[in-house]
Amino acid sequence: MIKIMPDDNFVIGVDIGGTKTAVALINKKNDVVCELIEPTPKIGPSELCAHRQMGLQDGEHVAKLAISLIEKIFNVAQIAVKDIGGIGVGVAGTVNFKSGTVIFSPNLPFRNFCLKSTISEYFKVPVFLDNDANVAAWGEKCSGAGRGASQIVCVTIGTGIGGGLIINNEIYRGSIGCAAEIGHMVIDKNGPRCACGNYGCFEAMAAGPAIARKARKAIAERPNALILKMAGGEMDKINGESLALAAMEGDELAVGILREIGENVGVAFANLVNIFNPELIIVGGGVAETGDLILEFAEDVVKNRAIKPNSEIVKIVKAQLGNRAGFMGAAALIREEIEGHHD
Amino acid sequence: MIKIMPDDNFVIGVDIGGTKTAVALINKKNDVVCELIEPTPKIGPSELCAHRQMGLQDGEHVAKLAISLIEKIFNVAQIAVKDIGGIGVGVAGTVNFKSGTVIFSPNLPFRNFCLKSTISEYFKVPVFLDNDANVAAWGEKCSGAGRGASQIVCVTIGTGIGGGLIINNEIYRGSIGCAAEIGHMVIDKNGPRCACGNYGCFEAMAAGPAIARKARKAIAERPNALILKMAGGEMDKINGESLALAAMEGDELAVGILREIGENVGVAFANLVNIFNPELIIVGGGVAETGDLILEFAEDVVKNRAIKPNSEIVKIVKAQLGNRAGFMGAAALIREEIEGHHD
Repeated sequence: MIKIMPDDNFVIGVDIGGTKTAVALINKKNDVVCELIEPTPKIGPSELCAHRQMGLQDGEHVAKLAISLIEKIFNVAQIAVKDIGGIGVGVAGTVNFKSGTVIFSPNLPFRNFCLKSTISEYFKVPVFLDNDANVAAWGEKCSGAGRGASQIVCVTIGTGIGGGLIINNEIYRGSIGCAAEIGHMVIDKNGPRCACGNYGCFEAMAAGPAIARKARKAIAERPNALILKMAGGEMDKINGESLALAAMEGDELAVGILREIGENVGVAFANLVNIFNPELIIVGGGVAETGDLILEFAEDVVKNRAIKPNSEIVKIVKAQLGNRAGFMGAAALIREEIEGHHD
Repeated sequence: MIKIMPDDNFVIGVDIGGTKTAVALINKKNDVVCELIEPTPKIGPSELCAHRQMGLQDGEHVAKLAISLIEKIFNVAQIAVKDIGGIGVGVAGTVNFKSGTVIFSPNLPFRNFCLKSTISEYFKVPVFLDNDANVAAWGEKCSGAGRGASQIVCVTIGTGIGGGLIINNEIYRGSIGCAAEIGHMVIDKNGPRCACGNYGCFEAMAAGPAIARKARKAIAERPNALILKMAGGEMDKINGESLALAAMEGDELAVGILREIGENVGVAFANLVNIFNPELIIVGGGVAETGDLILEFAEDVVKNRAIKPNSEIVKIVKAQLGNRAGFMGAAALIREEIEGHHD
């Protein structure tokens, strides 16, 4: 248990995802003093309609959850708002970080919602708002696998594929805050349709649903496959983990599928290595946790496909902070802002 | 004719390419006062051997040409070395710009050649050395199509495909100066082999040789094709220009090939739009000069394939400086360095 000093220089980090919202109190040594996680509330169309009739903006209930979690943290840690220097927030969506607005989110009801002012007007402290992939990349850069590196590509491979770019020691946001959509880099122009409408995107070729789709297709022809056993006999539960478990038992079918996915990951990584000449590719998400074999295959592909000096320099490493990367990065960003390091 | 004032604040810009070397005298208003171009000398293995026996470093004859062209400029403009503030050099190769070394060049004999010190020791003035694609991108940013934009992707489509990235108003070089190899971004993982050893690279799918290959294949089945006439009846002379001429006459075969190439360019541009969220893609090289149809097809593909806010923001424009982009950018970079704007 980290001792709470009343004169410590606390900040709050918040990570609002489509599924969960996490809030943490972080001291000046960058230790997580305490953290709270709750499911992000989902509301249906009828509730949304009722909210609108009450004059509430879409997404206001999500902002309220974040505010209530921050207040809970104050209670748990027995501190007051005067003890914190600011609140850093990462949110799963497209953010205009200058105005502090969530422009759009695929999994949250925010539409041009000024989340920064909502939170800062409530607590009367400085607030920093950014995209969740950006704050997670910044978390890894400051406190995780990216310490000491200046040029980093962060890739999160889970249900989708997200990206965060650290360029010359700063988060790269692009002209309107929508950069780093590396999951929607096409690697097979005639490949399967992606959720974004494009074809053969990295995400459509290597994220969770692509893995499950390939596995289900293979199992349809081999109903006794070990992969299915590893998923408890339930077709719907097949995922990267069941494939990894079967592959560890030497199952050829599972190894073959993981090789295919690893090849796709490797082609995408080789592109990123050629484009960014990064020191590090940091891999997070489900694949980082269960996909050692995928990453091994991918590394071979990078060696064979990327141009020489770049492929020799880059290191492909796993993310270190897991789900904590988001609030830790958000906290680091607000700390820089209030301490004047950030321009 | 621009009047030469002896008290003007001149700099020299140099662009050393695989085919030509260009040198220009540039005044403080950024006008090109005069310029000289000569073929970059090519030497065979036996001459190279003789050079080595004389104790010369590989590439020294290329450095000598650049030096002699700079001296010629002094004569032509009737100024002396004391009248210039510095020399900016762009070179077709991989550059360590801190040490001023050409690490490697695919078309020039430089191998770990310290070109910066060779030139600065000769003239005793500050010298700035960078990769040719970087200086050309900087030229367009300062004096061409990129004025006023902060996030720019420059793409030169000719015999190969080169890239230059302007990120937050600076050239992005990557961890060892080898970034922006966007010609070697795979867009079709099962596509044709590229000169770099990878498969289905943007370059292998859309540069000059890919255009000519597609055209020759199509003509083999239709020997009376208009494309061949436009190339003077010579199969070897078929290029983007002969295709463009045939397409302007309404030739379906030519239009079809340009559509295919345009689609490939569009897929690559959509990737760059998703990754960088740039304000501009600036297109130079042969395609910019003869490929209006290719760019029209490519723009449609970007609209259909790239994610929404990004595709709406980006403008795809042609480079404005042509062959002058390299020495103008190199000159701008040395001017910033000697005037202290550059860190």
